[in-house]
Amino acid sequence: MKPNSNILEKLSESASKVEEYMERILQPRRPEVLYDAARHLILAGGKRLRPYLTLKSCELFGGDTEVAVPYAAGLEILHNFTLIHDDVMDHDELRRKVPTVHVKWGEPMGILSGDLLFVKVSQAMIEPALNGRITAEKAISCIEKMSSAMIEICEGQALDTAFPSSADIDEDDYLFMVRGKTAALFRACAEIGAIVGGAGDNDVDKIGNFALNAGIAFQIVDDVLGIISDEETLGKPVGSDLREGKKTMIVIHALGNASLAERKALKKVLGVEDAEASDIEAANAALQSTGSVDYAKQRAKQYAEKAASELGSYPESAAKRDLLEFVEFVCSRIY
Amino acid sequence: MKPNSNILEKLSESASKVEEYMERILQPRRPEVLYDAARHLILAGGKRLRPYLTLKSCELFGGDTEVAVPYAAGLEILHNFTLIHDDVMDHDELRRKVPTVHVKWGEPMGILSGDLLFVKVSQAMIEPALNGRITAEKAISCIEKMSSAMIEICEGQALDTAFPSSADIDEDDYLFMVRGKTAALFRACAEIGAIVGGAGDNDVDKIGNFALNAGIAFQIVDDVLGIISDEETLGKPVGSDLREGKKTMIVIHALGNASLAERKALKKVLGVEDAEASDIEAANAALQSTGSVDYAKQRAKQYAEKAASELGSYPESAAKRDLLEFVEFVCSRIY
Repeated sequence: MKPNSNILEKLSESASKVEEYMERILQPRRPEVLYDAARHLILAGGKRLRPYLTLKSCELFGGDTEVAVPYAAGLEILHNFTLIHDDVMDHDELRRKVPTVHVKWGEPMGILSGDLLFVKVSQAMIEPALNGRITAEKAISCIEKMSSAMIEICEGQALDTAFPSSADIDEDDYLFMVRGKTAALFRACAEIGAIVGGAGDNDVDKIGNFALNAGIAFQIVDDVLGIISDEETLGKPVGSDLREGKKTMIVIHALGNASLAERKALKKVLGVEDAEASDIEAANAALQSTGSVDYAKQRAKQYAEKAASELGSYPESAAKRDLLEFVEFVCSRIY
Repeated sequence: MKPNSNILEKLSESASKVEEYMERILQPRRPEVLYDAARHLILAGGKRLRPYLTLKSCELFGGDTEVAVPYAAGLEILHNFTLIHDDVMDHDELRRKVPTVHVKWGEPMGILSGDLLFVKVSQAMIEPALNGRITAEKAISCIEKMSSAMIEICEGQALDTAFPSSADIDEDDYLFMVRGKTAALFRACAEIGAIVGGAGDNDVDKIGNFALNAGIAFQIVDDVLGIISDEETLGKPVGSDLREGKKTMIVIHALGNASLAERKALKKVLGVEDAEASDIEAANAALQSTGSVDYAKQRAKQYAEKAASELGSYPESAAKRDLLEFVEFVCSRIY
């Protein structure tokens, strides 16, 4: 298990140009309140994993990462836009330790500022073509990849909304939602970096599959962390995911493999906002005894390995090492 | 004053190919509920004014309107997307005589289906480039125009949200909002049709100004209709615009030119949902005595004339006649 300081430094280094670009493209115009709302979540931070994927994929194919910056920024803006709308839909009040946009400025501004950010994605992606820094054909391909991802995001979120509880879905449904929540955008980030970097169709597909699998691993790891972490690591009370009825691979596996007693322990807390700490403890024990936590860890590892294998045919390079380290980082959080 | 049957027939004729394209690009995928929600308002009808502008502008410059259909459809989808989100923001329950999307499927699906429609706009606009029916450069220019309009739409709506009442704004603010509500998208529709039709930059600007001014006229006419129509023509009770506190050119002018008594009569009903019919009558009388209804009619006519004058330099053609008839149609509703 390597320390993560290396990749954290790299993430923050690659983020600075992206943040500069986001700052520029989100310069306030009238009315300022709209731009304050649109910039709020972006300014609150975030790991900037998505732009990192774009820049590193561009670099892998020998591209000029300067040209990829607007795309990396556009994809981070897209990510933030979906979070703002998700928070409105889920009535969530905190994200990145700050009040959510609709809590601060009201739901209409939450919806509107999200819409504004989405337009900014298109603007970021056409700008390099308008400036002659990239061919119009490449910019169109990038918009194609971004649009496909955004459609998966909407579909995944709609499925999540349509099925009220984990008991209604199986692992295939879960993976459909995970593509929407994380993996489709990860894939688009890598694909777009590769297109800007000059990769051919096969390489674009390959790096896209790398990122898609890394994204699935990332989301499963998130599910595991939600169960095994203590309050301090998690930043929210132990059992929150269970109390919120979050649809995780662990719970879906457990419901499909539980004894009657284990199932009863789970049902007692799933989606029950005021579930007792002792009941949470019993449910966590059930998730262990069904082998569901280990199962999810195993699956996360498989997806991470699948991701890494997509890069197998590329010669050693700094970019390749950074991308492999990225996948390791994703999984290291549970080992 | 000509009868409108001619333009109504032409609108419906030009709409059929656009509707076919929208049908195709919104083919349901999983989960179907998302696509049902996204198609709901589009299937409920609408005059299809925006696609008409696109197709006729394309025709004016000798372009192949077949190639313009995806753009016309994309812009109609954009329009419907903004209406769905507006209805969520304003808690409106009916549009085009059917329940609004969020009333039928809940607010999350209202937000999500709008987001999905917005992605479909991008997809519609890149498809002709991916199919080789248009150059990638032209597709990029179309997305540029669409994005600029969408930003004005967000800004206009945000200003509308930020200022609670007509007393807070002047005519310049009103025009800013009208650009967002109608005119910026009208302009983009015409510009994009012209780009697809092969027009040069000057012609794109000219036809854009034509449509921008037509759009402002259209919105002012709408304001006037909201005051002078009877319940049957309006499709809602007399006085609705006043009771809802809608910011109209008429009310803004009246508040700036009213006597103390007139102002009192207006304040008694503006934004007062349960205002008495007799008070509505008194307020309407005040809007007449301040000359505000006539003022707005006059302003609408000026914008319509300005629109028409932009077409002055083009030789006679069927497309030019149709576009001029379009502006006449917009204004004929109040004469």
